[in-house]
Amino acid sequence: MATPTPRRLAFVTGNAGKAAELRAQLAPRAIEVVQDSRGYPEVQADTLREVAEAGARHLLAEGLRPPFVLEDSGLFVAALRGWPGVYSRHAMETVGIPGLLKLLADVELETRSAAFQACLLYVDGAGGLHAFEGTCAGRIAERAAGTGGFGFDPVFVPRGHDRTFAQMAPAEKSALSHRGQAIRRFLEFLDETAKA
Amino acid sequence: MATPTPRRLAFVTGNAGKAAELRAQLAPRAIEVVQDSRGYPEVQADTLREVAEAGARHLLAEGLRPPFVLEDSGLFVAALRGWPGVYSRHAMETVGIPGLLKLLADVELETRSAAFQACLLYVDGAGGLHAFEGTCAGRIAERAAGTGGFGFDPVFVPRGHDRTFAQMAPAEKSALSHRGQAIRRFLEFLDETAKA
Repeated sequence: MATPTPRRLAFVTGNAGKAAELRAQLAPRAIEVVQDSRGYPEVQADTLREVAEAGARHLLAEGLRPPFVLEDSGLFVAALRGWPGVYSRHAMETVGIPGLLKLLADVELETRSAAFQACLLYVDGAGGLHAFEGTCAGRIAERAAGTGGFGFDPVFVPRGHDRTFAQMAPAEKSALSHRGQAIRRFLEFLDETAKA
Repeated sequence: MATPTPRRLAFVTGNAGKAAELRAQLAPRAIEVVQDSRGYPEVQADTLREVAEAGARHLLAEGLRPPFVLEDSGLFVAALRGWPGVYSRHAMETVGIPGLLKLLADVELETRSAAFQACLLYVDGAGGLHAFEGTCAGRIAERAAGTGGFGFDPVFVPRGHDRTFAQMAPAEKSALSHRGQAIRRFLEFLDETAKA
């Protein structure tokens, strides 16, 4: 069932950079994005979508009034069987980029493929859940480069490029990135819903 | 409030080895341990206790009748800021022991300290939660040894010993281990409750 396009949307995230990215993308549609930094439990699940959906149900049960969005993202490294995946934030805060590079120290450049994945979850005004996913394929660089972005951005080189996410301007990264892709799918959904 | 000592106790775990260890320890008290392999969501939390408590509340909400126990454990490596910690199972299934050894490749033997931690959570017949914790300090060996146990046991050498957990017989490991310690605290609790 179609719900009206929100004029104001809370983004439940502790990451101001993520909120700024969504804000920039929604501004042309006159949707105001407000960061809500409350936390919510993230389940240990195999997919980002499960993590996001469990978080949304928790927030609804806690009484947070929709509409709101939340997002989960992670880096999946093929040679490491998908590690760190849904636990990317913990990996970043513990072993960090030096740890990732050590784990790949003897892995050839052509087999250092990885993908950043994102799941943006929109909880509409009626409490319905809508998941929008994005993937950005690339590889892990042999050393860190750049100061932009956050997390593993300094070692991730998107396919077809030779610079890391951290070496790109926000708009350039967003045009390529997993999160940018998920946001664009969300925008398409809002446009279709508005027409319906 | 004291609840009667259970005669039959479900252990909600997918790990038959853990169930066998608890069964061996509770047999002398004529408490039957039955493995229940249903899964439950594990939250991404900072402590094992939070993971176990959230799991217990989920199982109760789902209608699992107490009494039952569940357990969470992890390996916390000091030089890696506590990684893999509560995400030990995921780390084991992805980067595994070779990954852990790579991350510590340039770390001197004297700074390879680590601790295994366990939290055993007992949900009594009235739905009350009781947490029993255990810690085993030690260090990460320079190479894997032994075939016993599971997880990171082949590279964990408990303090004061020169063999890994995987080189020890189950009873020897249990006398030292984090899980054995948590189980003994649980037994003391049952004994006190029976007296009250």
